[in-house]
Formats: sequence, structure tokens, C-alpha cells
Amino acid sequence: MRTMAVIGTGLIGTSVALAVSRRGVTVYLSDRDPAAARTAAALGAGFVRTPAEPVDLAVLAVPPSQVGAVLAEAQGRRLADSYTDVASVKAEPERAALSHAPDPDRYVGGHPLAGRERSGPLAARADLFTGRNWVLTPSPLTSDETFDQALELVALCGAVPVVMGSKDHDAAVAVTSHVPHLMASLMAARLREGPADLPRLAGQGLRDATRIAGGDSRLWGDILQANAPAIAGVLRDLHRDLSRLVPALDALAAPGGRERDLGMRTLVDLLDRGISGLAEIPDTRSGASPEDLCVRVAVPDRPGELARLLAAVADFGIAADDARVEEARPDGDAHGAGFAVRFTVPPRTADRLVAVLGAGGWDVVRDATVAVTRPGRSPA
Amino acid sequence: MRTMAVIGTGLIGTSVALAVSRRGVTVYLSDRDPAAARTAAALGAGFVRTPAEPVDLAVLAVPPSQVGAVLAEAQGRRLADSYTDVASVKAEPERAALSHAPDPDRYVGGHPLAGRERSGPLAARADLFTGRNWVLTPSPLTSDETFDQALELVALCGAVPVVMGSKDHDAAVAVTSHVPHLMASLMAARLREGPADLPRLAGQGLRDATRIAGGDSRLWGDILQANAPAIAGVLRDLHRDLSRLVPALDALAAPGGRERDLGMRTLVDLLDRGISGLAEIPDTRSGASPEDLCVRVAVPDRPGELARLLAAVADFGIAADDARVEEARPDGDAHGAGFAVRFTVPPRTADRLVAVLGAGGWDVVRDATVAVTRPGRSPA
Repeated sequence: MRTMAVIGTGLIGTSVALAVSRRGVTVYLSDRDPAAARTAAALGAGFVRTPAEPVDLAVLAVPPSQVGAVLAEAQGRRLADSYTDVASVKAEPERAALSHAPDPDRYVGGHPLAGRERSGPLAARADLFTGRNWVLTPSPLTSDETFDQALELVALCGAVPVVMGSKDHDAAVAVTSHVPHLMASLMAARLREGPADLPRLAGQGLRDATRIAGGDSRLWGDILQANAPAIAGVLRDLHRDLSRLVPALDALAAPGGRERDLGMRTLVDLLDRGISGLAEIPDTRSGASPEDLCVRVAVPDRPGELARLLAAVADFGIAADDARVEEARPDGDAHGAGFAVRFTVPPRTADRLVAVLGAGGWDVVRDATVAVTRPGRSPA
Repeated sequence: MRTMAVIGTGLIGTSVALAVSRRGVTVYLSDRDPAAARTAAALGAGFVRTPAEPVDLAVLAVPPSQVGAVLAEAQGRRLADSYTDVASVKAEPERAALSHAPDPDRYVGGHPLAGRERSGPLAARADLFTGRNWVLTPSPLTSDETFDQALELVALCGAVPVVMGSKDHDAAVAVTSHVPHLMASLMAARLREGPADLPRLAGQGLRDATRIAGGDSRLWGDILQANAPAIAGVLRDLHRDLSRLVPALDALAAPGGRERDLGMRTLVDLLDRGISGLAEIPDTRSGASPEDLCVRVAVPDRPGELARLLAAVADFGIAADDARVEEARPDGDAHGAGFAVRFTVPPRTADRLVAVLGAGGWDVVRDATVAVTRPGRSPA
């Protein structure tokens, strides 16, 4: 890929342009707001110029409802050999491409799963897509060449391609994005009602739960409209869930008895299903690696000893809540009363941790159990 | 305040004990799980001992449904002069105190608005409450002395007291905490249904929107049960909202016409109400201070110039999205075509920024408009 056009230099379009410009691609920028395109160019995202000959790939970074028209217009003037978009719904743009575009085989739908609360070119970042999933939804007509160009774009942006059908994509984002947005809006709207001091009770939980309700309401209206059938289905499910949950809460508010027990069971069952649903969300933070080793430290049962230990391990980047109290030794042992604390750390850290804590007078062991399950492992 | 008892050494109880211990208060710790109390003591939160004489204040850090019983028991053995709790619902503990406790005038309800996703004493932090709101809900019987002791506790923890009635508190937390938790659970539960690739479409928005669905389901069941009437009321409102929203989405999914326009209006109206509700949530991040000054920099209209400017201001802790494009100058002026970028910064930074950027060849001015609105202001 040598040349690319980006139509629409908002957050996503400018970030794409920045990412591929850094990889040596020449990018031609345009936007219906000329100032936005010039801002993107001044950031180093490319040039505000019409290419003299067709570019390899055009990226349409416009709202979902405009993808079809912009695609038809761009293909009409032979802007590029291949075309993709970055809209967060995919069935409607695909339908528009198949029914109106001059060369539907030259288009593949795309949706990078990245964003920020802020919009516009100044919020753009070249690394916005690094490590993120980027869905591609080839239609039955999409040519191999166009699909390959889109895959190269994803690779240039450092993202991970996920190939899905456009309808499956839209059913999934209804659950993962659109309905959560609407529910956040419904909850945030309630903050204007109720007691005067209500907003002072807002904590981080509410802030997190409602943050996605922000953003441009017309752009979001456009996105939600383009996926209205899938969203309506999920909202119907939630409506039905609430029809069950309200009587359960009513029962819990009542004096007691069997109905109250049933209400509590309904409630805890819902909470448990929510917790197991959370486990489906891939965690972007790195968890414990299978290479990790355990280090166990005995802590004397005196005030401040655990705090002293945690201060000592803080140098290794280990936080207090990375520690696990392994066993209580209420009756004491050779070392007197106390308990053991376990840290799970990478092998290299384990060796240094054992050495430093040992030198500091702590009773510390590398966990034998873990070592035994990894025969032949030599300390790093 | 010289002495305090903390009953329940989980996250909140241990954090309270750590905070007041650092301020010189002697803290006596207890928990129905002796290992938890000993862990808290080893962190430096206090002593696992029964005080020889009544302490000044006992903090009951137990689940809401247990506050009444624990209060009655503690008052029965004269553990303290005054009592408060930290449960996240307040009407039910108050009712229990007024009807069962030996000295209801010696109790005032409390609810610090702080927490973490992790629980238990090892997740505790002495600064957990710093700058956070801490609601106190005195009953008609609460004595001035007890209320003052609770206010001193709040101050020792570095928190900000908010005084409310217990019923108003519960109506507010239904909106700000309990219903968002339940909605997050309902949405997270749906992640187990739908297309197989669905979790790969989960982004940061979904992660934030559902995070509060985590946590111990039995503890949360207990919390929600204690506030069931207020929660049921809010859920009824949401149920009604959904009854309106589903037809609006259905209309948007239909071919077009007047109903579709009405559907879009309903949708955008909801989104706008959500956005205005978000504005009610106080932002913990420091926003622009009224002391701040504007610095305007002219940017030549050449690729990479804005990136060069943003790199230059990064040393001052100014991020790209702190910049605002102020005016486009498509026709150019004395400095040629380009635009201006505005940064809002503290006065001290403004002076250094102007000096450094000026020395770097940038065309930079401190904003006269802002200076004029602050007559008599001398540069720091």
C-alpha cells in the first residue's frame, strides 16, 4: 500500500491517517469542513489535496447513514482501487453499497473497535488502534484484492482483524455498545430528578456506568437508527427482564415470608448472571501469566508488619491488593504467631524478590508447589 | 477523639482504621473472621483487642442488614460513647436503631462515598476517603455530641460531610448506585447470548458500563434488599421509559415517513436528556480554574506544524486534546495561511509557555480578552 485517501477527518479518520502516514503511506485528506481537514494535515496526517490518480485504498470515515452516498460518489470519480469504511454499524452500509455503488465488489465494510470520549481531529492518536480488534464484514461480492487491502490497513494500524457477517456484527454491537449507550442515557436522565443533593451521591461507579451517554446526540441518533431492528430486539429483552425484576423488588420490600425468599433468589440469580457475563469481556489489562511463580512471605502478627512488607515489595511494582493472605497461623509455629502472604510474580522478579526480602530479614520462600509443576524450568 | 472501635475489617472498615490511626487515634479492631481483623492490624490499622473502657466512637462496618443487631449488641456492652455505621443504605439501619437499640440517641447513620472493586482488608487504603463525600443521616433522636463525633471522624478521614435525611439518601442512591448496578447486571447477563464472536466486540465503553455489575452477589443482594422500595420505584420508571423507547426504535427500523421522524425525535431527545443528566455529576478531575489564562499560538498551514507545536507544549503537561482550534484563517494574514490554537493554563504556566514558545519561533500571545476581565491581576 503506497497511497490512501481518508474522507472525513474526525477522531477516527485522522487517527487512521496518522497511523498509516507513519508507516510511509501517502495520505490524501478531505472533509466537508475544510478546517477539519487542514487541522488533520497540520498534525502530520497527510495532505489536503485531490490525488492525481486513483489511490490504493479509500477509507470513508463518515457517519453510517452517509457511507452509501459517499461511496457511490467516490467510486463515480474513481478515487481509489478499493474502499472501506469505519462506521459502527455494518448491515445498512453494505445494503447501500450493494444497491447503489458502481463497483460493490470494490467495497468491504470495516469497524475498528476504538474510540475516545472526545471527538474531532485534535483528539486523534496514531496509536488509537494498537492491539484493538477491527471487524471486517466482506459481502458476497467483495473481491479478494479489496479484502486484502483492508487487511493491510488493519495491520498498518497495529490492529487485529476480526471477520464477521454484517448482520452478526450488528446483532453483537447492539448488545455490546448501542443498548448500553441507551441504558446509560436513561439512567443519566434520571439524575435531574429526585432529591436536590442527589448528584453529591454520585461516585465513580455511576460515572463509569453513564460515561458512554456522552457524545454527539445527532451522530449517535444516526448510528442507532442504522441498527434499529437489532437494538429494538435487545430492548424488548430488557423490558421483559424488568417485568420480572420489579415484582422481585416489591416482594423484597414486603414484610417477609416465602415471597421475599423468592424475590431474593431472583435478585441474586440476576447478579450472578451479570458476574458470569462480565467474565465474557476480554480484559485488556495483562493478567497473571502461566510463567509466573509464587513467593510466600511469613508475616509476624504485630501491628504494622504487613505494611512494612508491602512497602518493601512496592519497589517491585507489587501493589497491596496483589497480595493474598495464604494461611492464618493463629497458634504460631517456629516463627511465632502470624500468617503468610503470597505474591504471584514473573520468574525474574521472583528471584530478586526472594533475595531482597531475605536480606531484609523476612522469612521468604519461593513456592515449591509451583516449581514442581514446571519440571526442567531453570531460574532466569 | 482519642479512641475508636471498628467492627468489621473489610475494605471500608480497615480503610477507616488506617486513616484515623495515622491521625493518632487508638483503634480497636474486630471482625467475625479473626484472620481479617489480624490482617488489618498487621497493616497498621490498630489492635485486635477489646478496649478496657468505652471508646469515643464505634464504627460499624458491617452489611446493612446487620447494622441494627450489631448496634444493639455493642450498646448492650457499652463499647462506645457514640456509634455510626458505613452502610450504603440508611433508612433500614435507622429504623432498626430507633426500634431496637438501647441508646438510639447515641447513633448517627453514615455512608462514605468511596469504594474499590476489590474487597477485604488488603485492598484498604488510608486515603480511600480523601476528598470524597461522606453522608451523615442524623435521626430526630441523634444527640449533638454523637453527631459531632461523626463529623470529627469524617474530618479525620479527609472527607467532606453531606447531611441528609435517611429516606432522601436512599432515594438518591437508588438512582446513583443501585439501579445502575442492576442495569449493568442485566446488560452483562446478555453477553452470554448472541453471536459467538460477540465478546470480541466489547470495547472500553462496555467495560466501563458494566464494571459495577461485579462484586459479591450476596452482599449486593443484602444492600439492594435494604433499599428495595426506592429501587422498585426507579425500575418502574425505567420500565415505562423502555415502553416508549421500543416503539421509537421500531419506527426507525421501518421504511420511513412521519413515524420515523417522530421515532428519531424521541431517540435524540432521550440522548440529549442523558447528556444533560451527565452534567449533574460532579467531575472529580480538576477542570479549568477561574484563575487560568489563555495562550494563543498561530500555526502555519503546513503538514506537521501542529504536531511540532503539540510536542513543544507536551513538556508543560498539555495534551493534544487540551488544545482548541480557535479560528481558521483560510485566506491567510500577515503570517500566511494557517490557524490559531488556544491553550488554557494556570498563570504561572502561561508565562513560561509564552517565553518558551516565543523563543522557539512560534507566534504566540497571551489572550488579552481574558486579562481584561481580571483587572489588577499581576503576572505570577
